Amino acid sequence: MRVLGIDPGLTRCGVGVVEGVPGRPGRMIGYYVVRSEPGEDIALRLLNLDRSLAELIAEHKPDAVAVERVFAQHNVRTVMGTAQASGVAVLAGARAGLPVETYTPSEVKAAVTGSGTADKAQVTSMVTRLLQLDAPPKPADAADALALAICHIWRGGTRAKIQAAALAAARRSPR
Amino acid sequence: MRVLGIDPGLTRCGVGVVEGVPGRPGRMIGYYVVRSEPGEDIALRLLNLDRSLAELIAEHKPDAVAVERVFAQHNVRTVMGTAQASGVAVLAGARAGLPVETYTPSEVKAAVTGSGTADKAQVTSMVTRLLQLDAPPKPADAADALALAICHIWRGGTRAKIQAAALAAARRSPR
Repeated sequence: MRVLGIDPGLTRCGVGVVEGVPGRPGRMIGYYVVRSEPGEDIALRLLNLDRSLAELIAEHKPDAVAVERVFAQHNVRTVMGTAQASGVAVLAGARAGLPVETYTPSEVKAAVTGSGTADKAQVTSMVTRLLQLDAPPKPADAADALALAICHIWRGGTRAKIQAAALAAARRSPR
Repeated sequence: MRVLGIDPGLTRCGVGVVEGVPGRPGRMIGYYVVRSEPGEDIALRLLNLDRSLAELIAEHKPDAVAVERVFAQHNVRTVMGTAQASGVAVLAGARAGLPVETYTPSEVKAAVTGSGTADKAQVTSMVTRLLQLDAPPKPADAADALALAICHIWRGGTRAKIQAAALAAARRSPR
């Protein structure tokens, strides 16, 4: 299965595409960072993110989208923008008719490093090793997005299958 | 000018449409509440919200969209969902090519009641009086959405005009 992982953010939104099956290393298809300027209007920033994600989904045709869950205990000054970006990220997957799964940072860290409290350097290091990359993906947002995709593949996407059926039904029903 | 106000929320998202000019009472065109079930999948909830807002914008053809700004100090259990919904709300306006403005709860309260610390009952009471409604709009989310629209009209939308030009330019530029 091919999974597009999204580490949501307004200033930097990491996107990573990985193909693989549960229990195998997996292959990186590509990674990207969608950027916008902190001083720019919020509507333009979200519109830019929405378009970029729609283009990447159209280009890579993933089977599922995995998005990092945002928590209120993060940096209060930026968390609202991150949460808005995550809403747009989840919506981008849903609008493309794809199953969307969210994972906590601990779930992602545990999936790739074995520890839910691993630091960013450990996550980047493991992503580089697991995907047999020549160099660590930069910035860290891209490594996190690849880790999200790996996490989703390894967890097998059982919930994703149920949700895909619900989404397909929702898209069929006229509103 | 016709303004569509949005009080973002996942479980209940208030939408209010008002037509008017600065300094005059204004006329209510309609109000709505977009609902989704707390137990439902987040992707389906945001997809439902996105569709409903796109439909209401297409139906009412507002000149601008006004969205309430979300703060981290709100209820931590629900604030992330509210912020995600606000991202989808801002995006809905931007995707329709409309200027989108955000206002803090205090700005909205001050605009309709004269006090930034007015309570919900006061806001509902003033909205009912200003729009000469036979009965108070219910639930409070709908009254808040109408108050947002009034707030935007009364503030004259100077920033909105600048932003409209930027949005139009962004939509013209191929990506």
